[in-house]
Amino acid sequence: MHALAGRLFPICRSITGEGVRRSLRMLGEMIPLELHEVPSGTRVFDWTVPQEWNVRDAYVANARGERVIDFRRHNLHVVQYSTPVRTRMTLDDLRSRLHSIPERPNAIPYRTSFYKETWGFCLTDTQLRAMEPGDYEVVIDASLTDGSLTYGELFIPGDTGEEVLVHAHCCHPSLANDNLSGLVVATYLADAILQSARRYSYRFVFLPGTIGPITWLSRNENRVNHIRHGLVLTGIGDPGPFTYKRSRRGDALIDRAMPHLLKSAPATTRIYDFEPYGYAERQYCSPGFNLPVGCLMRTPHATYPEYHTSDDNLDFLRPESLEESLRLLIDLVHLLERDRRCMNLSPKGEPQLGKYGLYGSTGGTGVDTRQMALLWVLNSSDGSATLLDIAERARLPFSVIEEAASELETAGLLKPLEHDVTFREAGDWRGESPIAGEKP
Amino acid sequence: MHALAGRLFPICRSITGEGVRRSLRMLGEMIPLELHEVPSGTRVFDWTVPQEWNVRDAYVANARGERVIDFRRHNLHVVQYSTPVRTRMTLDDLRSRLHSIPERPNAIPYRTSFYKETWGFCLTDTQLRAMEPGDYEVVIDASLTDGSLTYGELFIPGDTGEEVLVHAHCCHPSLANDNLSGLVVATYLADAILQSARRYSYRFVFLPGTIGPITWLSRNENRVNHIRHGLVLTGIGDPGPFTYKRSRRGDALIDRAMPHLLKSAPATTRIYDFEPYGYAERQYCSPGFNLPVGCLMRTPHATYPEYHTSDDNLDFLRPESLEESLRLLIDLVHLLERDRRCMNLSPKGEPQLGKYGLYGSTGGTGVDTRQMALLWVLNSSDGSATLLDIAERARLPFSVIEEAASELETAGLLKPLEHDVTFREAGDWRGESPIAGEKP
Amino acid sequence: MHALAGRLFPICRSITGEGVRRSLRMLGEMIPLELHEVPSGTRVFDWTVPQEWNVRDAYVANARGERVIDFRRHNLHVVQYSTPVRTRMTLDDLRSRLHSIPERPNAIPYRTSFYKETWGFCLTDTQLRAMEPGDYEVVIDASLTDGSLTYGELFIPGDTGEEVLVHAHCCHPSLANDNLSGLVVATYLADAILQSARRYSYRFVFLPGTIGPITWLSRNENRVNHIRHGLVLTGIGDPGPFTYKRSRRGDALIDRAMPHLLKSAPATTRIYDFEPYGYAERQYCSPGFNLPVGCLMRTPHATYPEYHTSDDNLDFLRPESLEESLRLLIDLVHLLERDRRCMNLSPKGEPQLGKYGLYGSTGGTGVDTRQMALLWVLNSSDGSATLLDIAERARLPFSVIEEAASELETAGLLKPLEHDVTFREAGDWRGESPIAGEKP
Repeated sequence: MHALAGRLFPICRSITGEGVRRSLRMLGEMIPLELHEVPSGTRVFDWTVPQEWNVRDAYVANARGERVIDFRRHNLHVVQYSTPVRTRMTLDDLRSRLHSIPERPNAIPYRTSFYKETWGFCLTDTQLRAMEPGDYEVVIDASLTDGSLTYGELFIPGDTGEEVLVHAHCCHPSLANDNLSGLVVATYLADAILQSARRYSYRFVFLPGTIGPITWLSRNENRVNHIRHGLVLTGIGDPGPFTYKRSRRGDALIDRAMPHLLKSAPATTRIYDFEPYGYAERQYCSPGFNLPVGCLMRTPHATYPEYHTSDDNLDFLRPESLEESLRLLIDLVHLLERDRRCMNLSPKGEPQLGKYGLYGSTGGTGVDTRQMALLWVLNSSDGSATLLDIAERARLPFSVIEEAASELETAGLLKPLEHDVTFREAGDWRGESPIAGEKP
Repeated sequence: MHALAGRLFPICRSITGEGVRRSLRMLGEMIPLELHEVPSGTRVFDWTVPQEWNVRDAYVANARGERVIDFRRHNLHVVQYSTPVRTRMTLDDLRSRLHSIPERPNAIPYRTSFYKETWGFCLTDTQLRAMEPGDYEVVIDASLTDGSLTYGELFIPGDTGEEVLVHAHCCHPSLANDNLSGLVVATYLADAILQSARRYSYRFVFLPGTIGPITWLSRNENRVNHIRHGLVLTGIGDPGPFTYKRSRRGDALIDRAMPHLLKSAPATTRIYDFEPYGYAERQYCSPGFNLPVGCLMRTPHATYPEYHTSDDNLDFLRPESLEESLRLLIDLVHLLERDRRCMNLSPKGEPQLGKYGLYGSTGGTGVDTRQMALLWVLNSSDGSATLLDIAERARLPFSVIEEAASELETAGLLKPLEHDVTFREAGDWRGESPIAGEKP
Repeated sequence: MHALAGRLFPICRSITGEGVRRSLRMLGEMIPLELHEVPSGTRVFDWTVPQEWNVRDAYVANARGERVIDFRRHNLHVVQYSTPVRTRMTLDDLRSRLHSIPERPNAIPYRTSFYKETWGFCLTDTQLRAMEPGDYEVVIDASLTDGSLTYGELFIPGDTGEEVLVHAHCCHPSLANDNLSGLVVATYLADAILQSARRYSYRFVFLPGTIGPITWLSRNENRVNHIRHGLVLTGIGDPGPFTYKRSRRGDALIDRAMPHLLKSAPATTRIYDFEPYGYAERQYCSPGFNLPVGCLMRTPHATYPEYHTSDDNLDFLRPESLEESLRLLIDLVHLLERDRRCMNLSPKGEPQLGKYGLYGSTGGTGVDTRQMALLWVLNSSDGSATLLDIAERARLPFSVIEEAASELETAGLLKPLEHDVTFREAGDWRGESPIAGEKP
């Protein structure tokens, strides 16, 4: 995943343009991603799809013709969606167009102006302070023209039409954790799901920020009612512990499943209530949709100093963090696929588990975790509790409870409820991660 | 307010009598208070309006004719509702009639015997210990005669018949915090409300303890169903932080509004659950009425040493505490007047706030409190949440959320629900306290 | 109670057999316990009543004929339900049949093998390490034959058919706290109930572990719907503080009553949520029954080192702990018998308590606990709250609230609701413990 991120990193992405297309095509080499183009000017709810922005070159050169700011060195040097410019001006006149971070003097900030026509440059504060008074040549060789907004989508059908939505942002140029991490982990997750039986259908969407989910929602308004669970993936490659932000509903299954899985995480994790600032969950959770979509991060946006600067680079992105994030998501899929409500077929008193080889024969000592899990599943399975309910009440990992339920089903002591059977027979989400190995 | 309290302080109030009438007439100079007289002997639920008590003089004089206890020096020297007496007795015989506080030797206690005929004197423990054995002349020149119970009421009509009840006690003689503080703050609050447009009607009642609210409830039994919110004001002039005691319901709007406003208070405040001991809320919250009436105090009764003694005097009453209490109540009225449920008119995704001048144009940095408030109001306004609900969820002050809602309404992105519109157009509770300045 | 436990201690009980019969007959000298016999082979839900096990002698003797392990010295020396054996074998061959506790070298463990045919001995680790290599004579003179499972039951009819179930285990040999404590306290409790009027009927069952409650439930399947409250008593004679484990429902009345009573206990007590491991509550709370049955312990099973060893002896059993456990249960019966919902007959404002002699006449000072209890009962008695509800809200002991309710009923200010009247007139559970004194 880190290698894939390395290939994507140099491309200059924005909310539209060639960089987005190149990036999505690169991911399309791994998974059968479908590219969609939505023409500039298309009305999408309260918004309008903007013109397409492409930039060929941009620089500020001093009197000696030396490029003191050079887009060719770093994509972040140009304010995103800058209008074309070709002029000469003094440093004093230019200054209000230059963005730096005094308290982080060697980092280039990331700045945008998608919906107000302007232009500007971003540079390190060290660069800025080194600029001498005098005249400068200022060039942004960019185009803002009618074109289209590009996004990627992959629908993986399951045995039912109930959908799981997985969202990753595809718009930031040369920022690694935000959000190449989400793109590469989502791609590997999709690949894993493609290789497995499943009851749910899965829909992966790779969209630019804000206008992306608004455009997608506007084009899929009548389809979103199939979404049962959803997750926005962003900033999941840094070394920090996991953070889960609940959906607006707060009590959706995903809002219980993620905290449950995170209880088993090695480090302390954070669970946040929904708030209407953040990523695409802002749109999925707008009151007109109110979808059960949460957001998975590691260190939350804007709370690490590398955020939205050139320091969010490939060094900041950790292979082991990407791997751990993928494993967590595979555990989540396993939970969603295997969760079910069951009926205890021997509900009066406990069944004699020893008869079925499920219980030790020597009495007088205690029980182990597996036996506790068997007892919990039997005691709670009156048709109302899901396996996740049971895992929460028993304070045992879902996987342990699910294993116990499967053993009891094999022994004929338990059966899943009708609807959940359908779901369950489709699912084959037990054991190891289905990822086949390294991808190119 | 402190000056007004200073004029009221010397008057000898009780649960009936001339002192109450004089006090209410003095308040009537500021606000159009209506005085009601309920004849002695009137049955009010399980109680009977008592005889009217008036005291002209009372003293205990020693053999040399010196008044060692003298009602003319302090109203508290006589046990309230003492029967008339004119006799001579030895100190030993008199002793059981004398009340002092050994652990607070220079304070005169406040004692009453409203419903059992007896008489007695209160004095400082220093006075008591200075009394020499021997004969004393004992005089209480008081009358207990058929008359009436007096109370004051002010009804301020609003655009709807839904009422807010504000209660202050008017019965304690020469005790400043308990409860001249409540009377003067309520008077100034009424004056402020009179000068403003409003959707709610407001009912101010100035009543003696226990028998007062029972009498009032008995005469207004069929009217109390108009009361939507109510508050008993008592002990709100001392230097301590605020205390709010919830209504019996515990989840009335007032029970959420007061704690919300107190979160912004400068000092740590206390929120207490209802208990059936305290002030007039005992009667308003009796099971036959169960009105949404809470109680606002600063330091709770009986937990400060000055309580019910001559040390609860004008020095103990702080002008700045009275002012702060009034401001809090004006904030409460603002909240009640302006709270409403709204509909987001652009509920699918976020509206493009920048189009309406409500959002900064440069992206890549965070949002400020105002923008968060806009996002919260939009995200939560599905017609179910009130602005107070939103403020609580957003952990932002009501005033900030309300301001955002007004901006969105102006922009045409939000509209209040029908019923709340009616309410809202009447209200004009924005900006500064409407109090015009000093009153005589 | 300790003396009674002392008589029961030497008897070799198991889940079936003569020891159980002798024990139950001994308890039957105090209370009219009925003995039931269920034939071996009877199907009881998923189980089968096992053969009856009786052991006459058992030993391991060394080459010199000395009994190095001797059942006659301690009942725990034989693994329960050992099959008969009479052979010679070397220490090496014997070793896998010998159970000791290395970390507690002077204690004999308690081991069983009820449902898998095997045999074995238990001994102290000191004994084990003293055994020299060589040949041993190994004898277990036991019989496993068709017979019956024996249990005791006592039904004490009350004025209604609503039942309280009290369960004690009767199966462990020569273990004092686990569970002679439960048997003797239950016996004394039954005796106390027999001597009192009561609205509830009480059903005491003395059963062997696991197969006992399963057998009883299987034979009383259509009767259990009468059970309103139930309690398993086990390990209530050790010096530790009380532990209450909630029923599966978690919100049954017993689940609130026990924690309420334990709040007044002298030591810190523990309240545990239900889990499906433990005692007979596992069966009563299986999903096919889901009865409101909790479990009362002192130190929880398996958390004290004496548990399931020969150190759980008569010294470990404390007379004062047994007495305190009995008093708690009598308080529980008092609560169940006297709990009721009442109507305040003077619900508008407070009644004038002074008229009824229920309130002090001098005002200006505070109220005492009794007066607070009167106010709480009046304020809360709108027909929805039980006295336990009120006690919980008021944070006062049930007995204080109940006393206040009785005073108010006497004064004509309160009346219990119809259904609760029926219940209440039957009950006579006020004042002292009805236990007549020492029993043989």
